[in-house]
Amino acid sequence: MQEIRQPGAHSYVFSRYLEPIAKVKPGEAVVIHTKDAFENRITSDSDVPSELLGDYLNPQTGPIWVEGAEPGDTLAVHILDIEPARDWAVSVHKPGFGGLTATAVTRMLHEPLPEKVFIYKLENGRLTANPRLSFPWRPFLGTIGTAPELEAVSALTPADHGGNMDVPDTKPGNIVYLPVRVPGAYFFTGDCHAGQGDGELCGVALEISAKVTLKFELIKGKAIRWPRIESKDELMVVGSARPMEDAARIAYAELIDWMIELGWDKWEAYQALTQIGKLHVGNMVDTYYSLVAKIEKTYAYIDDKGGSPE
Amino acid sequence: MQEIRQPGAHSYVFSRYLEPIAKVKPGEAVVIHTKDAFENRITSDSDVPSELLGDYLNPQTGPIWVEGAEPGDTLAVHILDIEPARDWAVSVHKPGFGGLTATAVTRMLHEPLPEKVFIYKLENGRLTANPRLSFPWRPFLGTIGTAPELEAVSALTPADHGGNMDVPDTKPGNIVYLPVRVPGAYFFTGDCHAGQGDGELCGVALEISAKVTLKFELIKGKAIRWPRIESKDELMVVGSARPMEDAARIAYAELIDWMIELGWDKWEAYQALTQIGKLHVGNMVDTYYSLVAKIEKTYAYIDDKGGSPE
Amino acid sequence: MQEIRQPGAHSYVFSRYLEPIAKVKPGEAVVIHTKDAFENRITSDSDVPSELLGDYLNPQTGPIWVEGAEPGDTLAVHILDIEPARDWAVSVHKPGFGGLTATAVTRMLHEPLPEKVFIYKLENGRLTANPRLSFPWRPFLGTIGTAPELEAVSALTPADHGGNMDVPDTKPGNIVYLPVRVPGAYFFTGDCHAGQGDGELCGVALEISAKVTLKFELIKGKAIRWPRIESKDELMVVGSARPMEDAARIAYAELIDWMIELGWDKWEAYQALTQIGKLHVGNMVDTYYSLVAKIEKTYAYIDDKGGSPE
Amino acid sequence: MQEIRQPGAHSYVFSRYLEPIAKVKPGEAVVIHTKDAFENRITSDSDVPSELLGDYLNPQTGPIWVEGAEPGDTLAVHILDIEPARDWAVSVHKPGFGGLTATAVTRMLHEPLPEKVFIYKLENGRLTANPRLSFPWRPFLGTIGTAPELEAVSALTPADHGGNMDVPDTKPGNIVYLPVRVPGAYFFTGDCHAGQGDGELCGVALEISAKVTLKFELIKGKAIRWPRIESKDELMVVGSARPMEDAARIAYAELIDWMIELGWDKWEAYQALTQIGKLHVGNMVDTYYSLVAKIEKTYAYIDDKGGSPE
Repeated sequence: MQEIRQPGAHSYVFSRYLEPIAKVKPGEAVVIHTKDAFENRITSDSDVPSELLGDYLNPQTGPIWVEGAEPGDTLAVHILDIEPARDWAVSVHKPGFGGLTATAVTRMLHEPLPEKVFIYKLENGRLTANPRLSFPWRPFLGTIGTAPELEAVSALTPADHGGNMDVPDTKPGNIVYLPVRVPGAYFFTGDCHAGQGDGELCGVALEISAKVTLKFELIKGKAIRWPRIESKDELMVVGSARPMEDAARIAYAELIDWMIELGWDKWEAYQALTQIGKLHVGNMVDTYYSLVAKIEKTYAYIDDKGGSPE
Repeated sequence: MQEIRQPGAHSYVFSRYLEPIAKVKPGEAVVIHTKDAFENRITSDSDVPSELLGDYLNPQTGPIWVEGAEPGDTLAVHILDIEPARDWAVSVHKPGFGGLTATAVTRMLHEPLPEKVFIYKLENGRLTANPRLSFPWRPFLGTIGTAPELEAVSALTPADHGGNMDVPDTKPGNIVYLPVRVPGAYFFTGDCHAGQGDGELCGVALEISAKVTLKFELIKGKAIRWPRIESKDELMVVGSARPMEDAARIAYAELIDWMIELGWDKWEAYQALTQIGKLHVGNMVDTYYSLVAKIEKTYAYIDDKGGSPE
Repeated sequence: MQEIRQPGAHSYVFSRYLEPIAKVKPGEAVVIHTKDAFENRITSDSDVPSELLGDYLNPQTGPIWVEGAEPGDTLAVHILDIEPARDWAVSVHKPGFGGLTATAVTRMLHEPLPEKVFIYKLENGRLTANPRLSFPWRPFLGTIGTAPELEAVSALTPADHGGNMDVPDTKPGNIVYLPVRVPGAYFFTGDCHAGQGDGELCGVALEISAKVTLKFELIKGKAIRWPRIESKDELMVVGSARPMEDAARIAYAELIDWMIELGWDKWEAYQALTQIGKLHVGNMVDTYYSLVAKIEKTYAYIDDKGGSPE
Repeated sequence: MQEIRQPGAHSYVFSRYLEPIAKVKPGEAVVIHTKDAFENRITSDSDVPSELLGDYLNPQTGPIWVEGAEPGDTLAVHILDIEPARDWAVSVHKPGFGGLTATAVTRMLHEPLPEKVFIYKLENGRLTANPRLSFPWRPFLGTIGTAPELEAVSALTPADHGGNMDVPDTKPGNIVYLPVRVPGAYFFTGDCHAGQGDGELCGVALEISAKVTLKFELIKGKAIRWPRIESKDELMVVGSARPMEDAARIAYAELIDWMIELGWDKWEAYQALTQIGKLHVGNMVDTYYSLVAKIEKTYAYIDDKGGSPE
């Protein structure tokens, strides 16, 4: 199986202006090696993040050229497996970053919150920093996306190309649908999390380096505007925006569009999601907030046709 | 058992300026009859909501005087049961109200969305409008709260007194903790929903009139700032604000405060919620949005002491 | 001339549930005495606000009954004069309050900003705390409004009834138009400012007690939804909401409605405000933010008819 | 004088990945030709914007290499003159774009507002579409900025590099200070407006093609985080973010930083801006909203030193 590693020159942007580091074929399973969001620079709870980290974070492995991908297609990414590449994860209270702190965007006159490093040992399917901080192994891809048409977007930003969504639903067993906006798609991924709560409250999940197995498929001539996720039982859309209500509106409005593709009347889809939709917060810390709107397939599929966006 | 009915003069505000309609004793279970959010005025899918409804909606049953309640106490409301008072529920696409429409607060120049009534038949544990719109019976109290100290707050508004939170977690089996801010607490409830998705997208859940069985307890000398909910397995806080990120911040910050009461260090609580907290949207349609932050008791209880806010 | 003083029982809410303290006739000029937002409790720069102030602030003089006022009318308040009732003003950096600090609504984990009192001497038309902090006398009414139909709203809140808008445009020479929602209108005012910048950044302007001369007029049968202001040269609407863009939308949308009343086509009014409208921030610190949208009468009056909302 | 024209390949992004089209020396005055935001494609009020316009709008003239500019410097752009390149301007009500409409970010289920073109004749210093829509010539640069360090940002977006701020303060006579983040600065400008109200309400000002005369200066070794503007009498900072309160916070917080550079104590600067600051809305329509915070030099300069950011 092809193995793809992060290049020496780090990739901090989702960008068509970078050279592809590998080529994959639709249908091919590949292994992608990812570094953690801090480029593996923080290794001990005595480290001082503000001294070790620069302005750019969250290095991606990519861009990966998907053969045959053209603007207007959809790239379906099957997440087959995520294996840890080390036996520990790290979280950090990083000054000026997080959900309950003043930031570069929500500017205030406060002193920064105290910085702090938590090292979690991975053992027996759990990540443990101390007896109070011990959580199960629930890995997912914090960052996954394609290149925008003209822009180069920071790897810290989630938007309609995917990116740093930090939603726990991009996990093994699920399919992530991404828009193709440039020839070859320019796929990137990274920022594996060994687990995360809704909102990623302090801004930093259980960060790990990992070995990720993915399979790519192309849905030719089918364009989507925002990332979609399919699990065994559910259809989901991720909306990313500020303020948070705009992310919620995007997620549900796009899910209505998906339901219309499945045969729904627009107003009945609006009604159905009112009564049975799910909406949780992926992140409340990144440059845009990401919310996930869901409907169970049981409710979404109104006839015998499948529900994937073919 | 004492039965309490909505008075002839409808109660559209959470207000200390109204006369109590009943008195309850701590420990006493009572039955409360509630009308639906439209005062039972919409009964057919040929009704025209904009003609039948006035400015004030969401009539409450209350105020109910809780004996012994004084400012600075917490009122624990055990939701024992919700029985439907009729065999149908109603939802409405109401002009100028909802999550994907311009409203009186988010003003735009668009024509209103089309209005529409959905009547759902309750049968065999399901609410069914048609084969595509058929959902299980999952009842909860859309509106529940106490009177503010000086203000009289619209029954359409959720805030730190509770009120129109529209979170599906105020359901049978759970305990809702509310602040007591006036002598007697002045408890109100109403707006029963036969079911609702996260966000209450179109603004109107499966509205029913109902018979609600509650038991009240007082936690003397224990003040809380925002409503808390306890289920068998989880501790929750409801934050209500705009923009939505402020509701999220309130919910998680208050949950940290609850964890500190349980013995947590503030920064470890922040870290724990980052990795294991849950955050979903209750409503994205009311005057304030309501979000629910949760932690499982398994993670919250760090010693042998109980986790309820005594 | 009738003189109206704040009652001993302080009025911290815009409320129909209070007893009117005076009656005025349309056309009558009256003098209203107001206390400062801290009830005159802070008098020295060695005072500690967090020790001297309680939960309720911003006492109003009212309610004042306006004879003949009925729901559906508009109350036109001519601000004739504001005289200082003392020779100093006070501003305060108050913990948990302000535009660049975490607050009870925008919750964070920071320590509060340091508290600090500034006493300004009023002399020769200037307010001077020290050589760097010396500003001209530019008085206005921070808080002015009528009672809502059913709610009782905190005197700290601005909304569609007026209230704590903190916009420097409610000043001598201008007319403030307020909705009448209860018989008698129940007018309140207070919170005089000797001057303020846009946004009222730290949350506390140059607070003074004052003697205010007002004249009331009734516009019978003319309902407005949001406060309007008329100066010699401009028409203005104040929108109050969160997030701030909703306040901006309200202010401009209502100004379009005003222009339609003056004979404008809706789309041309939208176009005209795009090219010539003004929009500044009144406050970015209160429970709702207040923005003021303006158009010069030169552009607004498209024929010989006057522009006041008769 | 060097004249710089927009290249054949249009520049829709502020990007270091493009080839510079010209080089300028500090101290040199140059003439820059700009096309209107629609690339001059709309020329008649019978045109249909949704048919004539693609996804990418707002072409810039650039990148322009500034000799000697290095990351960490500040680029001071003196706006010497803006001359119209034609005798008419255009505004458009464009579906899905504007301040009082649902958009791609604030998603709703409404039909788009009606589209409409307004052609304004420039004559005798006024722009006139009809007797009601006639406004003075008040030209400014809608879009002006430098390239970000790694990202390529849409020319429709304002952010900390400047960009599509749409603030009427970037006008002849004023100096715009921009951060230099890449060698050569990579300066872009375009999107001249013949005039605009605060907020740019419908999303489209009085758009013209123009001939702009600028002079560049470098302030070596002086880094700024957000664009600053200096007029004869005022110091200003432009903050761009969503929700709008974050733009307001940025603008005022950065203005405090500027005042600290001028010798102010942080808390006195906070107090001074509370009492004398100005804050108006530049745009309420772009991907980020832009607000301008100001202080008059009379208040800002507390000693004999100048106030420019050297």
